[in-house]
Amino acid sequence: MSGHTTNLRLKLPIACVFLQFLTILLFALFVQYDAETSAKLWHEELALRNKSHLQNEFYLRYPSFQDVHTMIFVGFGFLMTFLKRYSFGGVAFNFLIAAFAIQWSILIQGFFHSFHNGKIHIGIESMINADFCAGAVLISFGAVLGKTSPVQLLLMTVLEVTLFGINEFILLSCFGAKDAGGSMTIHTFGAYFGLMVSRILYRPQLKKSREREGSTYHSDLFAMIGTLFLWLFWPSFNSAVAAHGDDQLRTVMNTYFSLAASTLTTFALSALVNGGGKLDMVHVQNAALAGGVIVGTSGEMMLTPFGAMIAGVLAGSVSVLGFKFLTPFLASRLKIHDTCGVHNLHGMPGILGGLLGVLVAGLATEDVYGDGLADIFPLVASGKRTTTYQSLFQLSGLVVTLGLAMTGGSIVGVIMKSRILGSPNDSLCFEDNIYWEVPEDHHNGFQGVVVVRAQETDRDSSA
Amino acid sequence: MSGHTTNLRLKLPIACVFLQFLTILLFALFVQYDAETSAKLWHEELALRNKSHLQNEFYLRYPSFQDVHTMIFVGFGFLMTFLKRYSFGGVAFNFLIAAFAIQWSILIQGFFHSFHNGKIHIGIESMINADFCAGAVLISFGAVLGKTSPVQLLLMTVLEVTLFGINEFILLSCFGAKDAGGSMTIHTFGAYFGLMVSRILYRPQLKKSREREGSTYHSDLFAMIGTLFLWLFWPSFNSAVAAHGDDQLRTVMNTYFSLAASTLTTFALSALVNGGGKLDMVHVQNAALAGGVIVGTSGEMMLTPFGAMIAGVLAGSVSVLGFKFLTPFLASRLKIHDTCGVHNLHGMPGILGGLLGVLVAGLATEDVYGDGLADIFPLVASGKRTTTYQSLFQLSGLVVTLGLAMTGGSIVGVIMKSRILGSPNDSLCFEDNIYWEVPEDHHNGFQGVVVVRAQETDRDSSA
Amino acid sequence: MSGHTTNLRLKLPIACVFLQFLTILLFALFVQYDAETSAKLWHEELALRNKSHLQNEFYLRYPSFQDVHTMIFVGFGFLMTFLKRYSFGGVAFNFLIAAFAIQWSILIQGFFHSFHNGKIHIGIESMINADFCAGAVLISFGAVLGKTSPVQLLLMTVLEVTLFGINEFILLSCFGAKDAGGSMTIHTFGAYFGLMVSRILYRPQLKKSREREGSTYHSDLFAMIGTLFLWLFWPSFNSAVAAHGDDQLRTVMNTYFSLAASTLTTFALSALVNGGGKLDMVHVQNAALAGGVIVGTSGEMMLTPFGAMIAGVLAGSVSVLGFKFLTPFLASRLKIHDTCGVHNLHGMPGILGGLLGVLVAGLATEDVYGDGLADIFPLVASGKRTTTYQSLFQLSGLVVTLGLAMTGGSIVGVIMKSRILGSPNDSLCFEDNIYWEVPEDHHNGFQGVVVVRAQETDRDSSA
Repeated sequence: MSGHTTNLRLKLPIACVFLQFLTILLFALFVQYDAETSAKLWHEELALRNKSHLQNEFYLRYPSFQDVHTMIFVGFGFLMTFLKRYSFGGVAFNFLIAAFAIQWSILIQGFFHSFHNGKIHIGIESMINADFCAGAVLISFGAVLGKTSPVQLLLMTVLEVTLFGINEFILLSCFGAKDAGGSMTIHTFGAYFGLMVSRILYRPQLKKSREREGSTYHSDLFAMIGTLFLWLFWPSFNSAVAAHGDDQLRTVMNTYFSLAASTLTTFALSALVNGGGKLDMVHVQNAALAGGVIVGTSGEMMLTPFGAMIAGVLAGSVSVLGFKFLTPFLASRLKIHDTCGVHNLHGMPGILGGLLGVLVAGLATEDVYGDGLADIFPLVASGKRTTTYQSLFQLSGLVVTLGLAMTGGSIVGVIMKSRILGSPNDSLCFEDNIYWEVPEDHHNGFQGVVVVRAQETDRDSSA
Repeated sequence: MSGHTTNLRLKLPIACVFLQFLTILLFALFVQYDAETSAKLWHEELALRNKSHLQNEFYLRYPSFQDVHTMIFVGFGFLMTFLKRYSFGGVAFNFLIAAFAIQWSILIQGFFHSFHNGKIHIGIESMINADFCAGAVLISFGAVLGKTSPVQLLLMTVLEVTLFGINEFILLSCFGAKDAGGSMTIHTFGAYFGLMVSRILYRPQLKKSREREGSTYHSDLFAMIGTLFLWLFWPSFNSAVAAHGDDQLRTVMNTYFSLAASTLTTFALSALVNGGGKLDMVHVQNAALAGGVIVGTSGEMMLTPFGAMIAGVLAGSVSVLGFKFLTPFLASRLKIHDTCGVHNLHGMPGILGGLLGVLVAGLATEDVYGDGLADIFPLVASGKRTTTYQSLFQLSGLVVTLGLAMTGGSIVGVIMKSRILGSPNDSLCFEDNIYWEVPEDHHNGFQGVVVVRAQETDRDSSA
Repeated sequence: MSGHTTNLRLKLPIACVFLQFLTILLFALFVQYDAETSAKLWHEELALRNKSHLQNEFYLRYPSFQDVHTMIFVGFGFLMTFLKRYSFGGVAFNFLIAAFAIQWSILIQGFFHSFHNGKIHIGIESMINADFCAGAVLISFGAVLGKTSPVQLLLMTVLEVTLFGINEFILLSCFGAKDAGGSMTIHTFGAYFGLMVSRILYRPQLKKSREREGSTYHSDLFAMIGTLFLWLFWPSFNSAVAAHGDDQLRTVMNTYFSLAASTLTTFALSALVNGGGKLDMVHVQNAALAGGVIVGTSGEMMLTPFGAMIAGVLAGSVSVLGFKFLTPFLASRLKIHDTCGVHNLHGMPGILGGLLGVLVAGLATEDVYGDGLADIFPLVASGKRTTTYQSLFQLSGLVVTLGLAMTGGSIVGVIMKSRILGSPNDSLCFEDNIYWEVPEDHHNGFQGVVVVRAQETDRDSSA
């Protein structure tokens, strides 16, 4: 029924096996435990530097890592299950992509950030950063959800992770920009990269699949599992690699308030913009999260609680309005079909988050930050640049991110277009049946819910 | 179909925007980072008091906070999804209310507990306490689930959070009562407040909605997500603000055993009281949790593991029996309709928890607690009161809580009765369709599950 | 309909109440708080040994405990919901068994490992180990899912927990084998114990229930909740009782990589072995987890990241191939019906994990481990045995585990066969209706999904 082009029998095993073995080879050649992970090296630290086990970064960062890990696999995974007939693909391709992305990004980020004497040294922060990078890829996945094969997605992952590493290196290492929660490096990058891929892969006949591009009552509830775990753990996401102590706590608090404010704003605007004064689950599932995105850069700064709330209101507003007015426009005029609306949740709030970072960095003073200035703006604290310069570097980081994401997404989109990669045809998008053995109830009935055999219907109706 | 009175187009945006902007204004005027959250102040602590980052409360309390946060948003949220046609409202209004409650309670609790020189100083404990307060409101929400509009619920939240703060201040600060896990301040308060609201909002014609007041197979599974996350993280709930070290660990352990015992008891009694010797999901979803409620006050004390188990058996028993015998009685005789059965899960076990606190406090001795007595009963340890007095103050706390909750709930119920607040009429309770854009499968068929078009039925039956 | 033999009205209450009261009695006689949990003893530690609260094991182990706890109740629980008409039994009997197992194993493990002066001293590690033991029982539960009554399962739990304790004592205390993540003690033991129980309880007429032994689209999604939470938190599972510092961090990292590699491998082989080149949800739900099982013994050793990945590839391969080829063979030839395929997820990967431990232990050198050798192989570090001997003891541990599990499972299977225990007959397996009050939609229609009344079908088809 689905045509042999989407048959994964050889394509997917070849792609997975090739990538997994390549990764293992590169790990064997280049990767080793860092000084906190190696039995020998950590015990040397204990002995020579008089450290205690409690000072191992494991105890300071592992709870945050686990929250981020939950967001990547459960949060993003279930958020993608809202489509009535593509929930398997949503949660499971998310799983596949993320499982590969974390391995590949350990290599890429390692080459850029922890390559010493020909070896990449990895520890707990490497794992957090790998999960972050997977997050960017999953954002891009959201833009093309239901319209791409897993082989295309793996190819996208290889390339996007690589470009993510380059972009991040430019921002953090070259520009000295701050972006602990990734408004720029993760959200803006992932969103615009994915949108450009979607633009290149534009399907003029996608309307043939339109009847499948909706939810059922229970698929919307599955998506809420994703939403709530993302919402809950976003404070951990933004703070996971922030500096110790006050930095982590402040980032958590700012994110907490921003999210709460974006949630109220989302409900308010959702009721307002929908015709009948009813709420829309799409808004609740997505726009309520925009408060986490918008403080990704400035969350560790002295944003103040009420500043965080104002940011959250802004993010929620932009996001709901984007779903209502901009997404249809992008699809019809700019030929950018955005399945999950990542432009509204990650794109615009990500840009605003970058700009908020520009603003708050520009306002930093020794008076407000005290000795803590060195943790957040080390180059400013050491006198190497003024806050105005810091601010300009933040802005440059945002511009570079947008440029690299859009250029990269366009090129990768062209590569992904190859017909050999198993993409579904226009009338079979948003349909699990082409890649999955599906249970009987999925086969029968377009609603993806039911079969009632005639004799049963008779029996029931007579009861 | 649902009548214009439930149209939220203006009511909900006005309520949300007003409350959010009022909150932002009050935060701007009064709220600031505490000494562990502020860059400047924490670095002063590091320098002047020779502290290390590891001593920042973030590392001691953040994992507990995240567990509590999960309980509030995922635990309570999914527990509310059991209704066949009101799952959106269950999980999403829970989300809305909690997102507002945490902001408002930071202000209210801040005024009572951390107001210095005209400013509220907030840190990680403020966030935990704010989540706790949201928990009380969500308990009340459980009593009126499906019968109230989100505008009514927001109004209830403003008022209940305020009264919660007053009650908590009386118990903890004036009476010196102990209640780390909130048997009294959270569970008893939330339950009886909500029950009185429900009493005032009594709907004589609610039977018109009765056919919707049940579950489907999968809505019961969604509710189990809520149950299990509440059950799992209840040890964190009870210990989150307990004193450091042994106190937190002991609270965790007591709660762990009490919950395990209430779970076995729930299965035992569920099979016993149901006519056909079958188990009832309502009991499993709710009564198994009563073991967490009953040790909310005494969990940090030297309750002993077997004492915790006995408490759990008692809680599970009372809860199952309440569902079977008391809930119908409350509805028919006392005109108190309790959608989620909060009286059984939070009300009675909360009171028992308060009484258990009276008992265990009265039995405390220096011999058993050693120097740890000062952490749990500082007024006793310092000789300012005897254990008998401590016990009496615990009892007074319970009485005051019941009085304030019932009085407050009655008054707030009257205020919520205003017809302008968008409440559904009696024949449209437990129905998402009036407040939500619902997917097609929800529209069709009373079961909230399906459409089978005639031609499909024919095709299937011929297959 | 289901016959009086499955009526639980007296059987289940008697079993639960008896076990709970016996447990409470034994706890009252034997169990007390350890030195980190008792108010008096911990404050003595603080005073006499100059400790700080931060050194309380609570802060080092509680986050790991909570992750493990989530795996046991949510992870295993939802993994069991995949059956279309047995999801209540899957998640709720999991809950019941685990809630009893943790209490009983505190006693059993306590007698073997922390019995001093006639008392069992319990703390945070006791709770983690109790959860681990529950995990082994739940693995066995997976083999007999849908074919046993809760009374049978409770009986199995009492006996299996006891034998688990004996086996663990032999391995860890007598042999000095290492098995922090339980490849042998938990996975191998639980799987082969359960498989032998299933063999003894073999039902020649099980084909009468075959139409119920499948999933629906949404039951597969519920199962993915279980899969993902198991996958996510497996690094915490393997590291929860590992030595402090580098050991815990290294175990986490090895598990992280092994799981990622087994995930890619699972997708590759699933597409390859299924006829139509389509993926199978059963593989994704289970085989992707095998990477966690296989590093349960060696995860804390210097396995290296690429070594962990190779292990993951091996585990994922064996597991998918097992589901495809071995499970049908076991059922038809060896009369071992394995509902969840625990042989593929826990059995074979567990054995391989034990063997990997033999290998990696044999390769350990002072040069690689430095002073850390004493944490992992204390007997080797202190010169009491060579690595070769350590290796042989590891191997002996695996053999003993297999022997005890299979013998024990056989005997317990015979005991469980008693007709008085409420087991369903062959045509009513995998059916919640016999033990549960089920919602109306479960009654109607074999698919467990729907009723469409005739008049509604007419109305819809005319729309």
